[in-house]
Amino acid sequence: MREYALDCRIVGVATRRHGGRYDPRGVDVAELDGSGSSTGGTASAAMHIIDRLGQSDAEFRVVVETTTLDIAAGEPAIEHVRAGFAAGCHVITANKGPVAFAYARLRDEAEAAGVSFLFEGAVMDGIPIFNLVRETLPAVTLRGFRGVVNSTTNHVLTALERGEPFDAALARMQAEGIAEADASLDIDGWDAAAKAAALANVLLDARLSPHAVRRIGIQESDGARARQALANGKRLKLVASAMRERDGVVSATVEPVELPSSDILAGLDGKANALVLQTDLLGDLAICQLEGNLTHTAYALLSDLVTIRRRQAQPVAPVRRIL
Amino acid sequence: MREYALDCRIVGVATRRHGGRYDPRGVDVAELDGSGSSTGGTASAAMHIIDRLGQSDAEFRVVVETTTLDIAAGEPAIEHVRAGFAAGCHVITANKGPVAFAYARLRDEAEAAGVSFLFEGAVMDGIPIFNLVRETLPAVTLRGFRGVVNSTTNHVLTALERGEPFDAALARMQAEGIAEADASLDIDGWDAAAKAAALANVLLDARLSPHAVRRIGIQESDGARARQALANGKRLKLVASAMRERDGVVSATVEPVELPSSDILAGLDGKANALVLQTDLLGDLAICQLEGNLTHTAYALLSDLVTIRRRQAQPVAPVRRIL
Repeated sequence: MREYALDCRIVGVATRRHGGRYDPRGVDVAELDGSGSSTGGTASAAMHIIDRLGQSDAEFRVVVETTTLDIAAGEPAIEHVRAGFAAGCHVITANKGPVAFAYARLRDEAEAAGVSFLFEGAVMDGIPIFNLVRETLPAVTLRGFRGVVNSTTNHVLTALERGEPFDAALARMQAEGIAEADASLDIDGWDAAAKAAALANVLLDARLSPHAVRRIGIQESDGARARQALANGKRLKLVASAMRERDGVVSATVEPVELPSSDILAGLDGKANALVLQTDLLGDLAICQLEGNLTHTAYALLSDLVTIRRRQAQPVAPVRRIL
Repeated sequence: MREYALDCRIVGVATRRHGGRYDPRGVDVAELDGSGSSTGGTASAAMHIIDRLGQSDAEFRVVVETTTLDIAAGEPAIEHVRAGFAAGCHVITANKGPVAFAYARLRDEAEAAGVSFLFEGAVMDGIPIFNLVRETLPAVTLRGFRGVVNSTTNHVLTALERGEPFDAALARMQAEGIAEADASLDIDGWDAAAKAAALANVLLDARLSPHAVRRIGIQESDGARARQALANGKRLKLVASAMRERDGVVSATVEPVELPSSDILAGLDGKANALVLQTDLLGDLAICQLEGNLTHTAYALLSDLVTIRRRQAQPVAPVRRIL
């Protein structure tokens, strides 16, 4: 990473099950097994480490938040993000919760603290969405978006089209590690709703939470519907969308929609995701993630680190104000 | 455009048929009808105006080059671009010729002259491709790309699938203003080959010209092939692609390919274009243009102007070196 003047040292790690560790000289992540935990339980470990990072005199301090989505209120991720700001640290997260529940407030707090708050991995792993809009679409106004943003439901719907029973398809996804053991966040549309809220809050300046998204998940009866759609040359897809209405209010929806084959979203099989951005000057454009894995999420964190480093090295206004 | 500190004045215009004009106080473009031409024929008009712009003391001088593609050698566009550099001006072009025929040399000349050379509109109107790679994909190495990048042939192939005869489909495209009166650049694959060379030169550091691209256009016999593909659940598309081979050499191809319906490129109807980028860290990702018109091309020029303005206001290294 010398090309980007990134010479990083991991000084603290807090984990859910293996405790945490802080060492200003650097933590050897490979050695972390919990046995040498010096900081106690999870929540306190994270807050303790952020607190100690805040007291360090490193010139470039970053909190990387990678807890999983809490659909009730986005915690403890929001708490971690705010603690990072309070400690004078930049914050990167791959968790969609903070942006889906509290983007405007966190953006303002980061600005007040003079730090960056970045989250490129929150919606589509490392595929650039927020950077795409911020860095490459000057003067463009977004009117709305629509996308297929949840891989588990897309896999299941594709299996249903082939005649596989709902429960069998889901069980297979779980056996293959594509779906979580508790797949309800995916199947009931919560993951897509959180992504819709995150995108709407950042790209359309909305004030939504996942609970404000009109949400219909997928269920067993969608098998017949998916096969019927296919027989009619269409595809049943779980579509997340948001639109700025005439009164300026942003509404967001997650629901299964029968798409004509000419729709770019109709062609997305299995793990592919895509987001269509509806713009004033460029019409509709789409960015598509054709594969997805943990390496991509890790890349998202790296890409955010580079963004922060660039801002720090030579402050420059992004073409669009998204922190 | 105050948000971007862009306060532009058009001081010179050279046209193919309506002469040219230069006025350091500003040219009223609406008044240009050729009758008041003060600078003679096209080529000399353009060079004359670039020369005069070079003598002005404006702090932010930009040559915007929008001639059409010359498939023989990319002229006079390359000559205009080089004259711009020689006059100390930044250069923006929406013409793919300079990048397809002479990117490496022009990039080096721009760097030596301390000016920017930008061309976001050259391949996919204003849809960000070069900005996408330069600004949002740090540390990613591109292995290759494949795309549907020519609208006329995509329209014709879609019509052929419906059983429309080749000549009738092409004539209809011409009547609707989608295809040029001389559609051979499109039909024979030259436009796609120029775009493939441009993308390969910039994104894969190749040294190709459109003539080095293996090229097969579309013809009447593709009607039966397109219908047969559709009957088999596939789509016949004119695909432009390039790949860095093991020996480091980049090879590029334009040819009709039967794509399975699961391929993101298979779903592109009519005027839709898309480019799949094959990367090391992010797998395959795609950017899709779902509509295209002259406003979009104009937007590409504007977006390049903003990029130059940002660099001038606060010089910052892009995350990737593409001038």
